Amino acid sequence: MPSLADQEVTVANQKLLQRFQKIRAQSVRLCDPLEIEDFSAQPCVDVSPPKWHLGHTTWFFENFLLVPHLPDYQVFHQDFCFLFNSYYVTVGDRWTRAERGFLTRPTVREVLDYRKYVEEKMEAFLQAFPLDSKLQHVFEVGLQHEQQHQELLLYDIKYILGMNPLFPVYVELDDSSNSNIKKEWLDIPGGQYQIGHQGGDFHFDNEEGVHQVFLHDYGIASSPVTNGEYLQFMESGGYESFQYWLSEGWDWVQQNGCKAPLYWHFENDKWFHYTLGGFKQIQLDDPIAHVSFYEADAFAKWKGLRLPTEFEWEVACRQYESEVPKSANFVEEEHFKPIQNPGFHGNLWEWTSSAYRPYPFYQAEEGALGEYNGKFMMNQMVLRGGSYATPRDHIRATYRNFFHPHLQWLFSGFRLARYK
Amino acid sequence: MPSLADQEVTVANQKLLQRFQKIRAQSVRLCDPLEIEDFSAQPCVDVSPPKWHLGHTTWFFENFLLVPHLPDYQVFHQDFCFLFNSYYVTVGDRWTRAERGFLTRPTVREVLDYRKYVEEKMEAFLQAFPLDSKLQHVFEVGLQHEQQHQELLLYDIKYILGMNPLFPVYVELDDSSNSNIKKEWLDIPGGQYQIGHQGGDFHFDNEEGVHQVFLHDYGIASSPVTNGEYLQFMESGGYESFQYWLSEGWDWVQQNGCKAPLYWHFENDKWFHYTLGGFKQIQLDDPIAHVSFYEADAFAKWKGLRLPTEFEWEVACRQYESEVPKSANFVEEEHFKPIQNPGFHGNLWEWTSSAYRPYPFYQAEEGALGEYNGKFMMNQMVLRGGSYATPRDHIRATYRNFFHPHLQWLFSGFRLARYK
Amino acid sequence: MPSLADQEVTVANQKLLQRFQKIRAQSVRLCDPLEIEDFSAQPCVDVSPPKWHLGHTTWFFENFLLVPHLPDYQVFHQDFCFLFNSYYVTVGDRWTRAERGFLTRPTVREVLDYRKYVEEKMEAFLQAFPLDSKLQHVFEVGLQHEQQHQELLLYDIKYILGMNPLFPVYVELDDSSNSNIKKEWLDIPGGQYQIGHQGGDFHFDNEEGVHQVFLHDYGIASSPVTNGEYLQFMESGGYESFQYWLSEGWDWVQQNGCKAPLYWHFENDKWFHYTLGGFKQIQLDDPIAHVSFYEADAFAKWKGLRLPTEFEWEVACRQYESEVPKSANFVEEEHFKPIQNPGFHGNLWEWTSSAYRPYPFYQAEEGALGEYNGKFMMNQMVLRGGSYATPRDHIRATYRNFFHPHLQWLFSGFRLARYK
Amino acid sequence: MPSLADQEVTVANQKLLQRFQKIRAQSVRLCDPLEIEDFSAQPCVDVSPPKWHLGHTTWFFENFLLVPHLPDYQVFHQDFCFLFNSYYVTVGDRWTRAERGFLTRPTVREVLDYRKYVEEKMEAFLQAFPLDSKLQHVFEVGLQHEQQHQELLLYDIKYILGMNPLFPVYVELDDSSNSNIKKEWLDIPGGQYQIGHQGGDFHFDNEEGVHQVFLHDYGIASSPVTNGEYLQFMESGGYESFQYWLSEGWDWVQQNGCKAPLYWHFENDKWFHYTLGGFKQIQLDDPIAHVSFYEADAFAKWKGLRLPTEFEWEVACRQYESEVPKSANFVEEEHFKPIQNPGFHGNLWEWTSSAYRPYPFYQAEEGALGEYNGKFMMNQMVLRGGSYATPRDHIRATYRNFFHPHLQWLFSGFRLARYK
Repeated sequence: MPSLADQEVTVANQKLLQRFQKIRAQSVRLCDPLEIEDFSAQPCVDVSPPKWHLGHTTWFFENFLLVPHLPDYQVFHQDFCFLFNSYYVTVGDRWTRAERGFLTRPTVREVLDYRKYVEEKMEAFLQAFPLDSKLQHVFEVGLQHEQQHQELLLYDIKYILGMNPLFPVYVELDDSSNSNIKKEWLDIPGGQYQIGHQGGDFHFDNEEGVHQVFLHDYGIASSPVTNGEYLQFMESGGYESFQYWLSEGWDWVQQNGCKAPLYWHFENDKWFHYTLGGFKQIQLDDPIAHVSFYEADAFAKWKGLRLPTEFEWEVACRQYESEVPKSANFVEEEHFKPIQNPGFHGNLWEWTSSAYRPYPFYQAEEGALGEYNGKFMMNQMVLRGGSYATPRDHIRATYRNFFHPHLQWLFSGFRLARYK
Repeated sequence: MPSLADQEVTVANQKLLQRFQKIRAQSVRLCDPLEIEDFSAQPCVDVSPPKWHLGHTTWFFENFLLVPHLPDYQVFHQDFCFLFNSYYVTVGDRWTRAERGFLTRPTVREVLDYRKYVEEKMEAFLQAFPLDSKLQHVFEVGLQHEQQHQELLLYDIKYILGMNPLFPVYVELDDSSNSNIKKEWLDIPGGQYQIGHQGGDFHFDNEEGVHQVFLHDYGIASSPVTNGEYLQFMESGGYESFQYWLSEGWDWVQQNGCKAPLYWHFENDKWFHYTLGGFKQIQLDDPIAHVSFYEADAFAKWKGLRLPTEFEWEVACRQYESEVPKSANFVEEEHFKPIQNPGFHGNLWEWTSSAYRPYPFYQAEEGALGEYNGKFMMNQMVLRGGSYATPRDHIRATYRNFFHPHLQWLFSGFRLARYK
Repeated sequence: MPSLADQEVTVANQKLLQRFQKIRAQSVRLCDPLEIEDFSAQPCVDVSPPKWHLGHTTWFFENFLLVPHLPDYQVFHQDFCFLFNSYYVTVGDRWTRAERGFLTRPTVREVLDYRKYVEEKMEAFLQAFPLDSKLQHVFEVGLQHEQQHQELLLYDIKYILGMNPLFPVYVELDDSSNSNIKKEWLDIPGGQYQIGHQGGDFHFDNEEGVHQVFLHDYGIASSPVTNGEYLQFMESGGYESFQYWLSEGWDWVQQNGCKAPLYWHFENDKWFHYTLGGFKQIQLDDPIAHVSFYEADAFAKWKGLRLPTEFEWEVACRQYESEVPKSANFVEEEHFKPIQNPGFHGNLWEWTSSAYRPYPFYQAEEGALGEYNGKFMMNQMVLRGGSYATPRDHIRATYRNFFHPHLQWLFSGFRLARYK
Repeated sequence: MPSLADQEVTVANQKLLQRFQKIRAQSVRLCDPLEIEDFSAQPCVDVSPPKWHLGHTTWFFENFLLVPHLPDYQVFHQDFCFLFNSYYVTVGDRWTRAERGFLTRPTVREVLDYRKYVEEKMEAFLQAFPLDSKLQHVFEVGLQHEQQHQELLLYDIKYILGMNPLFPVYVELDDSSNSNIKKEWLDIPGGQYQIGHQGGDFHFDNEEGVHQVFLHDYGIASSPVTNGEYLQFMESGGYESFQYWLSEGWDWVQQNGCKAPLYWHFENDKWFHYTLGGFKQIQLDDPIAHVSFYEADAFAKWKGLRLPTEFEWEVACRQYESEVPKSANFVEEEHFKPIQNPGFHGNLWEWTSSAYRPYPFYQAEEGALGEYNGKFMMNQMVLRGGSYATPRDHIRATYRNFFHPHLQWLFSGFRLARYK
């Protein structure tokens, strides 16, 4: 008979179990609109097949919890560790990332069976073994990891569908448009501020290293740049004017013949874009989406302004939106597109001007989980705030997302900043 | 009421219709063992997704017969001409070949619907309109074209499945092995011989240009080289000895780290290979398969012998096997692997030493069909004889197949020749 | 007769002229040991032919001063603007950077004639026209620019000679080795510090934007890491252990088969390296050179330490070495190699952990000179301190050098830091 | 005292010595117009630096004659075998072909010293040791090899100079133009013909294998296609019309943006080209030069004609020009450009429609010299006749030159053929 402490732990496990089931179900639900054929494609190296996301998130629980900690656990399939490892060198060899789209097997059915098998074992595990704090942490990382992949899943689904000339509809979207959002400058006085995650709730290692920064007086826009504003940049020759661009950004524009954000098409003298609701005309008041850092930075230079640093963003967010507001647009809202909505949380990840580098006092986690964040701290830029593909309970003001500056397929936008 | 001539034509159409239905059904039947996921993958640029083959062969009938000749014909889908054109510049723009694997849509179901739609229209067309000789030819090319794609379909299916570490079984294969085939030299006296296709039955333009060649006395092996013989080459260091290789072949070996034919794996001190029946141990007396021209040529040099020219092959074939024998191993036999079987027809395409160049008097067909053969007459080598993936009624002694010399994924083998 | 003001300006011009002549002569003197053949080679895209450096630095004066400001100036050769423009899009089209090594003409003789012609015109210009402050700035940038190219010239000369299996000697070097340098931790208390260049003396726009930063207590090594220390990293398997490496660094190691710093060779059980004095055995107490940022960062992780930020470096430098010491090893010393010498200035550029991004308040210069620094602020890391190829009067504590993190051919080393 | 036989051999050696000296001097003379800077450049992988040609041809004599056969021979420099080996795997490792342009050392002076050293040793060798027939053959191959490199040297010199926007003049050329050449069809009756080299004079192994071919009645043009004729093809949209092109040729046109032969430039509404005499206007009656096989083949298709096979070319040449005529334009004439001159020998190599494959009975030479021809018999096309860069005594009707079909930098043209 378990001790009182055990009972408490069991209650904790019970809550974990419920979150586990809810999060696991959401991954599959996001795939509901897909055809079987959509699950295996990899139209560019940054995209992973939806099937692979479903398998990889399962592999995470299998390899970091069941294999080492559940007695007598039998792996579902001996080849899946090889097939569904992403980048964990610690864990062993893995299938080449760029060739994930070649894997027609296991089938979607088999991957769903794999999910079910691991879920049942995880449930048994959670019911039988109170997790100590270390295992609770690994389990929590597993949940957060799956939520991150849910977001990537939507990026990838949109890319897979949006690169197809048939422009399939993922979900019917409401095209109605709110009244205009009033944009204003939020002014923050200079001084010493604290950055980084405090408190015991979940966060990644890259948010740790609470530290002081000094900020000079600055202003930050109360809402992001819109399609209409960006169109002015385009129409004034922004993509043809090298002087707004970083040198590597200009190379990227030239080599790829960039003329507009990703998914934009010019037909019959109008701009359209592919959305998860299909091929639609651009709405001028919606936030600009699917821009690379290079494009965001060039737009800011054209405006004579700049992007905020990640520190400026974090300080402003804490000051003006200390909690995630109910009106924020996260995946639970099922808008499946950015909406006209001021504020810092949700809608679109916002490029900052900060390179993704470790905070002072940063320490990578021990073991394989230490490969989660730290080793990517080079040649990437920080984004903040979350997107309409981010789970609401996954985001917080200190969350640091990061991508290479040329990428457009993520759900990215940006807001402007200035010194006073 | 149709005239007598019309009635005859109708009878002819009726036969065409039956062949049409039979051939069309066979394309789909070859895909029966596949999972939906297998239909869309393109693991290398030479491979096309099975779904694409099914669509492209349908597009051929739609674009070359229905659109120009069936009154009031409505295309099944306006984007399919773009999606399913292969290389016919005459017909218009097309989807990039290397990105066929990115097309998750149309779905397999929709492609099958497309097939059904076009088949019904074709049947109506054939029943309503007696085909004149020109249209009969186009129709016949459509059938032959679909048969060629059936063969490619099997190459591609094998590659898609065989590159997968799970090594899925396409069909259960009988592993029993016949008694040994006796190999001997067939001697052909020198002299003037006639080459090329004569007579009114179907053939491609590249077989035309009947002409004389002079051949010197030669001998040609009565059956192809076997796994056992090839293993001796491997074990004597063939892949490490530059002197047997053409310079570009040696580069190919070095750059790709080639050590064996495609699909071969060395495990536990034994050689295995992936077959359409799954992962199997090599059988020494079976014909060697999945070798590039470079490998065939290097083997011959190692033996102090050579490959036959395509003319030597054709003359020997006509002399020793004037008709396709019943015992030949074509797709109808459903062996789905090369078997121990002497002779010139079926089993495996045989690399010859001849570059694929036009015959004297060669004239490409007019119009889009003229793109079928002639424009590929560069940097490719001729193969003769057909394979276990070739339809039996598709082959003849004059048939010229052609592939680039580094390719291994086709069903290729070779036999040896020598001067006397 | 010039007014008093004019006379003063003339005196100023006279000093400028002397500096001009001295700096111009130094560029050519650095090439004295070269054979004519060495002037045109470009063995990798990052290297420019010495001849090109000599032409490009001349083009700078011609295009930014003589063409716009010297009345009736005739360009030396109408094609040279095209041939010797580097990356100034403002100025017009230019010869492809990667193909500079294809330009056998103009000859070295003609480039030296070009230099002489422009120098004579510049002297006439300086004697005839008192420069206003704006032109003085452009002229000063021209001098600083030429000094930067002198440094690159030595990098490139070393690469051109060092990639040659004959390992030519650039200059005879003294191999004697000082007594050991004592390394200690310099401790800096946390607090608010000022960063950036102040005062009227020359500096680049990227040093501007004087601003406050907050630093936490830290320690910084009094001298850089040595060959001996780095060898321990190598011998403990540093290049085979992914866990010390950034992900892109590990890819770089794998793809390039890196096993040691650039120019190192292992022969007869000993490590040698190519130096400007030829092929020599490694001296353990010398500072490690020719490491990429990835290598510096991996070494620090292996040690359980870290690189300093550029701010930490600048603060420590100002505190411990407020002026460039006489003992510092710059190009004037003609050691042509790093020596055992503590301190912050000279010897080798030191990789910091800071990404090269704009300071707060950063404003790029107007016009073509605005392309000098700002557009490169992406995917590069900051280095500080100067090297034995840097002109002594060119360096200062606020100087920000920057290179991509995989590059090794620059004269780079690093020192360690830690939190307390 | 040598025997009579010895004396005869000595006389033979004396003749060989004179040819040796003459041929060796010619290699250097061809470089007379060059600046030192021109000797080391490699602007594309197919081009070798002139310095490398001078070294490599010397290496041939050193390695195949002096090292194995001259007692006590000391190599000039131990690294030169590595640096100047081209593709002889038998002989050992070699410097990467694509990086020959990185070798600034040895200097031109040192390479000339190397030549002188080897020449003196060769002279001593020839005077001291009567060569047996085997060594005479190796020696002869060395001479022929150097003559082949003299031709490549001119191709490469033209490319190095012609890619330079300064368009340096190699030699002053006479621009006068002869009266027009009358072009007519030469008709050859069908029948059995003998192909290949007979007799004891020098020839390469790829010309051996004397054999019979059967040719059908054909006509062949008495002179090659001219600039004027080719311009009509260009102006009628030849480069924009896929139907004239082989598929790989069309890809080549698209990928390289080809619009004209190599060295052609369109300025001020006129076509110019770079010649060894500098930048000149096109002369319509001159033979078209610097076309790839793809361009020659497309032109022929546009004309409704074809290229001759190498057999047709050889038979016609023997019939109409059994000896090399005095008027033929070879390197000794020092025209340094193609001239208006009918006939089969000299002026420009002529693309044939024949793939470069072995003749019947072909046997590669033993040893390293066996790598000379045979290993290149793949993906290349045969050219016949010689060019204005070919030594007159180097050519014969049976000579088979070969290049990849996309290359333009060789001195290539073509003539047309047809069936009757």
